[in-house]
Amino acid sequence: MGSQRLITILFLIFFFHSPSSAMHGKKIKLHHPCKSLVLYFHDIIYNGKNANNATAAIVGAPAWANKTILAGQNHFGDIVIFDDRITLDNNLHSNPVGRAQGFYLYDKKEIFTAWMGFSFVLNSTDYKGTINFSGADPLMNKTRDISVVGGTGDFFMARGIATLMTDAFEGEVYFRLRVDINLYECW
Amino acid sequence: MGSQRLITILFLIFFFHSPSSAMHGKKIKLHHPCKSLVLYFHDIIYNGKNANNATAAIVGAPAWANKTILAGQNHFGDIVIFDDRITLDNNLHSNPVGRAQGFYLYDKKEIFTAWMGFSFVLNSTDYKGTINFSGADPLMNKTRDISVVGGTGDFFMARGIATLMTDAFEGEVYFRLRVDINLYECW
Amino acid sequence: MGSQRLITILFLIFFFHSPSSAMHGKKIKLHHPCKSLVLYFHDIIYNGKNANNATAAIVGAPAWANKTILAGQNHFGDIVIFDDRITLDNNLHSNPVGRAQGFYLYDKKEIFTAWMGFSFVLNSTDYKGTINFSGADPLMNKTRDISVVGGTGDFFMARGIATLMTDAFEGEVYFRLRVDINLYECW
Repeated sequence: MGSQRLITILFLIFFFHSPSSAMHGKKIKLHHPCKSLVLYFHDIIYNGKNANNATAAIVGAPAWANKTILAGQNHFGDIVIFDDRITLDNNLHSNPVGRAQGFYLYDKKEIFTAWMGFSFVLNSTDYKGTINFSGADPLMNKTRDISVVGGTGDFFMARGIATLMTDAFEGEVYFRLRVDINLYECW
Repeated sequence: MGSQRLITILFLIFFFHSPSSAMHGKKIKLHHPCKSLVLYFHDIIYNGKNANNATAAIVGAPAWANKTILAGQNHFGDIVIFDDRITLDNNLHSNPVGRAQGFYLYDKKEIFTAWMGFSFVLNSTDYKGTINFSGADPLMNKTRDISVVGGTGDFFMARGIATLMTDAFEGEVYFRLRVDINLYECW
Repeated sequence: MGSQRLITILFLIFFFHSPSSAMHGKKIKLHHPCKSLVLYFHDIIYNGKNANNATAAIVGAPAWANKTILAGQNHFGDIVIFDDRITLDNNLHSNPVGRAQGFYLYDKKEIFTAWMGFSFVLNSTDYKGTINFSGADPLMNKTRDISVVGGTGDFFMARGIATLMTDAFEGEVYFRLRVDINLYECW
């Protein structure tokens, strides 16, 4: 094996092992997820009348609001805690594969925007483990990207991006979210 | 050195530098932490009578509850803020090595489950820096895994898994948690 | 090329590709960020009189406090939600490049300390995307490090450290924070 060819091989190794070397520019890069999932979760907010069905409740509100009705000014200041069903399709009554647990808070007076911290706690034949999310959710956008900041079990140490879409809603009580999860770090 | 042996070496380098290459299957993989710690923290919840000792307080509650007593229905809807002692052993009165600061919220009506976002702020001869955690805490399980999403100081850029165990509790006022922290990304 | 020299090259490759190999000691290591930004954000807390200007509001408070005035005992127990302007310099009225959205909570009775979960939602000619933060903010320290736990858009999958500095404040209504963001993982 000549020096030339050796150097080529070494170069190739170096190149493939330095994914960040070409990353400081602004060109569009394609990254391929190491794992992808599509899941739905179903948020039913307590409104004073639906205690039996509700899976979420307002637990913090600004001085000018109460905790039975989402606040005026685009719900600015409301904190909602949830424990929602996760399903594989968009049917609330499908067999749940886990629970979405955590909170969101409405953080802007002019339009609907939220900030979320939550986990998918999955317990199905396909997946056992948790996926942890956090990020801004500008609800008026068709798709919103948040971060997958970690995971456990089948999602040990995972990182990635989750794209949220409001799949359906009924008044201010029922919200169905579709989540496209793309993991780019899998262990 | 022959080509054969060279290729073997190159292969080995490649292999050891590609931890993710074998990670898309479902087989059990053993990962060795780059750093491990075991710490305890001590949560004393304000109950209307213990203002001097309390290190935590209910600051959000659902419409049907108040902030002096943990809510019915497995505390669903309560948000608790804490600033708890961290110790190296299970004794509340041991020399503290730092503070556990952040919040947890109870998110399920049927059983006890929580969601946590908090930091260990460590300031001892052994460690100076912070470890940041988030994740679901299904309290009824003996062990619960959450994510270490980052760190600063001695834990600069750390990632890993923290395993929580309820080590002791007294009524609904004192909770002692053991945390086994295993970092898998160390810088 | 002799074996000796080849081994040296292989060693160097191995060395440069194993940043973690020397990381378990306590010596000081220098890491160079792959991207750095300095930004300011401006928090104007609702105090009962400034509804038009306020960008933040108390939405959770302990049993002994209300939501129009920050609580006694160093605001322990207050949760504040915000949607603050981000600017490139320290002038509130400069052209905003995005919004800082999320929450902070005061978590200690003896001194001012907070815990924060929030995002920078950037929308300027330079940057489009979000940066997600979480961590402890010991406000009395001149500089405080928190974690960048993820990002989207131009900050796809980013990780790093953000150093917070209180740049100015007026009473308990206006706070200006300078944030030095250093990313160490860029994609």
